[in-house]
Amino acid sequence: MAYVHGYSERETQRLYEQADILEDILHSGTEFPANARVLEAGCGVGAQTRLLVKRSPGAVFTCIDLSEKSLATAHRLKEQAGFRNVTFGREDLTRLSFADGTFDHIFVCFVLEHLDAPIAALQELKRVLKTGGTITVIEGDHGSCFWHPETPESVAAWKGLITAQQHLGHDPDIGRRLTPLLTEAGFRLRTCEPAWLYADRLKPALRDGMVDHIIVPMVQSAERQILSDNLVPKEVYEKGIADLSRVDRIEEGTFFYTWFKAVADKR
Amino acid sequence: MAYVHGYSERETQRLYEQADILEDILHSGTEFPANARVLEAGCGVGAQTRLLVKRSPGAVFTCIDLSEKSLATAHRLKEQAGFRNVTFGREDLTRLSFADGTFDHIFVCFVLEHLDAPIAALQELKRVLKTGGTITVIEGDHGSCFWHPETPESVAAWKGLITAQQHLGHDPDIGRRLTPLLTEAGFRLRTCEPAWLYADRLKPALRDGMVDHIIVPMVQSAERQILSDNLVPKEVYEKGIADLSRVDRIEEGTFFYTWFKAVADKR
Repeated sequence: MAYVHGYSERETQRLYEQADILEDILHSGTEFPANARVLEAGCGVGAQTRLLVKRSPGAVFTCIDLSEKSLATAHRLKEQAGFRNVTFGREDLTRLSFADGTFDHIFVCFVLEHLDAPIAALQELKRVLKTGGTITVIEGDHGSCFWHPETPESVAAWKGLITAQQHLGHDPDIGRRLTPLLTEAGFRLRTCEPAWLYADRLKPALRDGMVDHIIVPMVQSAERQILSDNLVPKEVYEKGIADLSRVDRIEEGTFFYTWFKAVADKR
Repeated sequence: MAYVHGYSERETQRLYEQADILEDILHSGTEFPANARVLEAGCGVGAQTRLLVKRSPGAVFTCIDLSEKSLATAHRLKEQAGFRNVTFGREDLTRLSFADGTFDHIFVCFVLEHLDAPIAALQELKRVLKTGGTITVIEGDHGSCFWHPETPESVAAWKGLITAQQHLGHDPDIGRRLTPLLTEAGFRLRTCEPAWLYADRLKPALRDGMVDHIIVPMVQSAERQILSDNLVPKEVYEKGIADLSRVDRIEEGTFFYTWFKAVADKR
């Protein structure tokens, strides 16, 4: 599967840091009852799995991904952290090996944005969800992102990531489409709300986390594609990364991004 | 003063409707105690004044604007609605007639985005605020706005408004700069948070209000400048307005915008 952020060690580190920085913003309100069978679809290196397990210690998680490499990393994390009630497995979201109605709840975070056919994946997830069960979907929207000071080069570098992801046939602005996607896949919507982050000099730790530990390394994870496809000229890209990093280094820097979190159920 | 939205009857109507639709989002948490002397700077037609009075019935408001025409409309509103404790007056934000330290609190909503020199205005407001008093500033950020489905024409029409405002020397993305502006003007920051609106099929009344009663008429208020300066070709603009309106007419339409609300004080 073509994945815009790749599978490097640095990217794994970014995913773990990102999950911690955004835990309150993204996981607030997501708790599953004891003994609930929960499918985490697209668990990757297990970055969100840690937080799911922490917040729902009695639930029984099945966490799946297509990437053997990511799953191996997730397995190591499980051993280090001593997770209980988690089984990792390799699955293809387009044809899951589970029987109809296997799971009580499904959790999907930062996955649909990387798929060729997100509606087909949601339909397959609906198949393995029991009637009355819920699906929780969290996706970003790169078009929601802005900062101050904004320079043409920092905007160009950011748009380079967006274009690289679009060239793979994927939608980096998918957050705004969660309710249409879930409806089209046949789910009944319960809620969909922005889960936003705004940081300025009043929240320097959050600003540092978002700029230096999430956004800049996120763009850099696609650097090879951005530069080799000449989506952004090298000197523009380099100044853009420097300008983006600077948002966290000067007093007046501000940063905004919003994810969307939707909950729907199967009738 | 060059004002991108103009002073038409339709625009007055838009401002009143906008204030009602956004009341909970923007005015939540803004209450002034009985007998507090509050300056509303840039009251325009009194659209926000109504809500200030409703939420702080015991405070004493002085509401100022540069436009005689807007003040005349605000006066009519006052008579119709039977406001008490409100005095409207014509003032220039760059040199107010009030003595130093006249007011306990200051309220500013959708004003800095239309000024040539927002920092100088904030400094003049600081002069007439007493030590220990607060300033509450609410400004939009047009760069924060996105919707689904997004067409090139709807983006072009929206960018036409942004460019028209920029051509006047004003900043339609000023929301993200509230903390730097207040700091540079010498205030001490207390809080600055996004005050966002997201609407989809789950919130059809809010989506209708935002799209049909705020955003579309807001762009149309600058239509003459957008078209006469050829910022957007006429046929692109017209399709763009139709596409924007359509966001509220189809089930799958979604819309996001965020304002920023900051509170600071004078040391």
